[in-house]
Amino acid sequence: MTTIKIALLGFGTVAQGTFNLLQDNAELIKNRTGVNVEISKIYVRNPEKYSHITLPETAKYVTDIDEVLKDDSIQMVVELMGGTSFAKDCVEGALKAKKNVVTANKDLLAEAGPYLLDLASKNGVDLRFEASVLGGIPIIRTLYESLAGNRITEIIGIMNGTTNFILTKMSEEGLSYQDVLKEAQDLGYAEADPTADVEGLDAARKLAILASISFNRRIFFEDVTVEGITCIDTEDIKFGKEFGYNIKLLGIAKETAQGLSLNVYPAFIPTTHPLASVRGSYNAIYVKGNGIDDVMLYGRGAGSLPTGSSVVSDIMEVAKNVSYNETGRLKPFYYDQKDIYSPGKIQSSYYLRLAVDNKTGVLAKISAKLAEQKISVLSIVQRNMDPETAVLAIVTSKCPRSYILNLIDSFNSLRSVKAVNSVIRIMEA
Amino acid sequence: MTTIKIALLGFGTVAQGTFNLLQDNAELIKNRTGVNVEISKIYVRNPEKYSHITLPETAKYVTDIDEVLKDDSIQMVVELMGGTSFAKDCVEGALKAKKNVVTANKDLLAEAGPYLLDLASKNGVDLRFEASVLGGIPIIRTLYESLAGNRITEIIGIMNGTTNFILTKMSEEGLSYQDVLKEAQDLGYAEADPTADVEGLDAARKLAILASISFNRRIFFEDVTVEGITCIDTEDIKFGKEFGYNIKLLGIAKETAQGLSLNVYPAFIPTTHPLASVRGSYNAIYVKGNGIDDVMLYGRGAGSLPTGSSVVSDIMEVAKNVSYNETGRLKPFYYDQKDIYSPGKIQSSYYLRLAVDNKTGVLAKISAKLAEQKISVLSIVQRNMDPETAVLAIVTSKCPRSYILNLIDSFNSLRSVKAVNSVIRIMEA
Repeated sequence: MTTIKIALLGFGTVAQGTFNLLQDNAELIKNRTGVNVEISKIYVRNPEKYSHITLPETAKYVTDIDEVLKDDSIQMVVELMGGTSFAKDCVEGALKAKKNVVTANKDLLAEAGPYLLDLASKNGVDLRFEASVLGGIPIIRTLYESLAGNRITEIIGIMNGTTNFILTKMSEEGLSYQDVLKEAQDLGYAEADPTADVEGLDAARKLAILASISFNRRIFFEDVTVEGITCIDTEDIKFGKEFGYNIKLLGIAKETAQGLSLNVYPAFIPTTHPLASVRGSYNAIYVKGNGIDDVMLYGRGAGSLPTGSSVVSDIMEVAKNVSYNETGRLKPFYYDQKDIYSPGKIQSSYYLRLAVDNKTGVLAKISAKLAEQKISVLSIVQRNMDPETAVLAIVTSKCPRSYILNLIDSFNSLRSVKAVNSVIRIMEA
Repeated sequence: MTTIKIALLGFGTVAQGTFNLLQDNAELIKNRTGVNVEISKIYVRNPEKYSHITLPETAKYVTDIDEVLKDDSIQMVVELMGGTSFAKDCVEGALKAKKNVVTANKDLLAEAGPYLLDLASKNGVDLRFEASVLGGIPIIRTLYESLAGNRITEIIGIMNGTTNFILTKMSEEGLSYQDVLKEAQDLGYAEADPTADVEGLDAARKLAILASISFNRRIFFEDVTVEGITCIDTEDIKFGKEFGYNIKLLGIAKETAQGLSLNVYPAFIPTTHPLASVRGSYNAIYVKGNGIDDVMLYGRGAGSLPTGSSVVSDIMEVAKNVSYNETGRLKPFYYDQKDIYSPGKIQSSYYLRLAVDNKTGVLAKISAKLAEQKISVLSIVQRNMDPETAVLAIVTSKCPRSYILNLIDSFNSLRSVKAVNSVIRIMEA
């Protein structure tokens, strides 16, 4: 049986998940690939940090990256350090040394994916990155292979576990955003500085990579219009339930006649939609195509073993390719130049929550403003808050975002409107 | 650009979906594969049946299979006729003539999968069958590749659209089994003879194929213990909702210390489980593994274009392999010999519905019988049907099926029990 020596770069959470699966499932991996995958070196800054972990006899720590890059016996480098500067140097060095590369590094892919894929192809080696987006969910291979015969028309994802955990807790337990955020931080589900998650930036980075593959066009983080979940109030979640909706932070990439629309925002989705039942820290991605109609993949978007599972599947695929001497086939397919569609023009239904004077005639004024903007009302709920104030929750018909912004302006000009508290998009089933 | 000539065998629903996608997405397929896939011949019994369809200039109908098998210019045969006898001869003939094969034929795979995979491998050609199970859901590739690094511990599937359509309608509209079946037949969702669907046989055939791949052991239809949905009553569905369950026809393959358990049966699942929200004719498969934790794939399990999409993805993969001169790599991996576990020993919670005398003391007698069998009660609901009769809906703790069968016997021996109407398993979250 062929033995293929690999090196791990980094030994954090995902690397240890990969390491554990390679050990625990060693027999199965041999049987399924016909190859003996042997961890030869693990590059780390400080090996002492890992002295509690027993390495197999074949493996040792190295602290000089050249011990990996200049070792001709190593045929595959598994980059699990994260970051873009040093990681990029390492991956570039490995590819130029004709070593195959597996990486879980989303930021590296976003920054230099096409360049590195080209470099791999030129050097006749593989570069695989299933684990770089959505952890254990095998979306990269599914888009590249299983759905390759489809013109993809839309992808909608719940692509951030932290925010989905927060929104699920708020929905199911009626807790406030601040309280749940604190709990998530205590549990280690949210960072001390949660900005990248709760402002939708992490989801936007993932969306850019998946949209690039789906739409055959390089899409950058900057192309995505982003809105986070910090303004979501439990009051809105309750009204949403009455209207038959769950709230989710969605990443949506959609092909329209005018170009690609790329957005991350919190939205109400019908409780009957399969994405509505994605709870807690789970992730899912829903794909529409002109052949498949719709497909959804659901699973663990992060975590040591789930992400490790994706890394190991790549290692196995590359190991088989090496054993058949058939590496270097995967190429980027960015041949398309679709425009990015201005988010102001995207049509959608909207949910609005207003605090208004608790007086007769106010509803007539509100309705007149809606009619002026040519927006019709699908549902409306009024509730008295106190003798002076009533709350109005309104679900509108589909209209461009610009209409809604004008509507809000006109509401604010009414003396009987105390505040426009919330504006949330509604995703159609 | 390389041109690869293919032949379609059969021109029914799936073949026409495949044909349409190959035409509609021709540019995209070229761009993504670097290969020009050309339909050269379409084998049918009676070409006149298809005179309304315009073929591309390169393609023509043939009525003699040798015009495909003996045509050296054809490098790939796409078998979409179904059946096992003639289809097997054709696939065998194609593989021996060193032609690659793509098939959507579940029955052929079940009967001769390993033999044909071996034959393909010996002849250095590919045999692909993504479309043979669950139509547009890319489960074959996911099990073979994306999840290959996992020891799969359990697969649970909603694998039959007809029964899921029936159960969804019964649940959501409170209609009877017979009424919904008739509607499904009128709509063409159910066959005139619905046995294969409603008795769970179709689901069992799919489960056998997916379990074979997941557990590295050849599993046959006969290994699966099967129970259908014909006894499900709307009364049970209503009680289920009160207990927080939806009803689904599940195919379950599970690794236990004593061997593999393989079952198809209707079961209550918690409404919070992702499988619970798979509605109508949609299918889904939920996979547990020692790396991924859990993953679910959801989509269209049948239909012309969705199944065609899976066929086209296989055609594209094989076309790339041909262009790189790298066919013949996929091998069956049946190296394991796990025992099949007797279904009588499988533990599960149960839902029971009984009609009993509407008298004091009856509940005490029922409870005594439960205690005798060492079965505890998790929930119980009693409802008076008429002055003489009460209905008891009971949810039990986990116990082996044999205990439940004994319990039912002992209930039937009680004079105050008029009937044990329903016995339904409950799947844990």
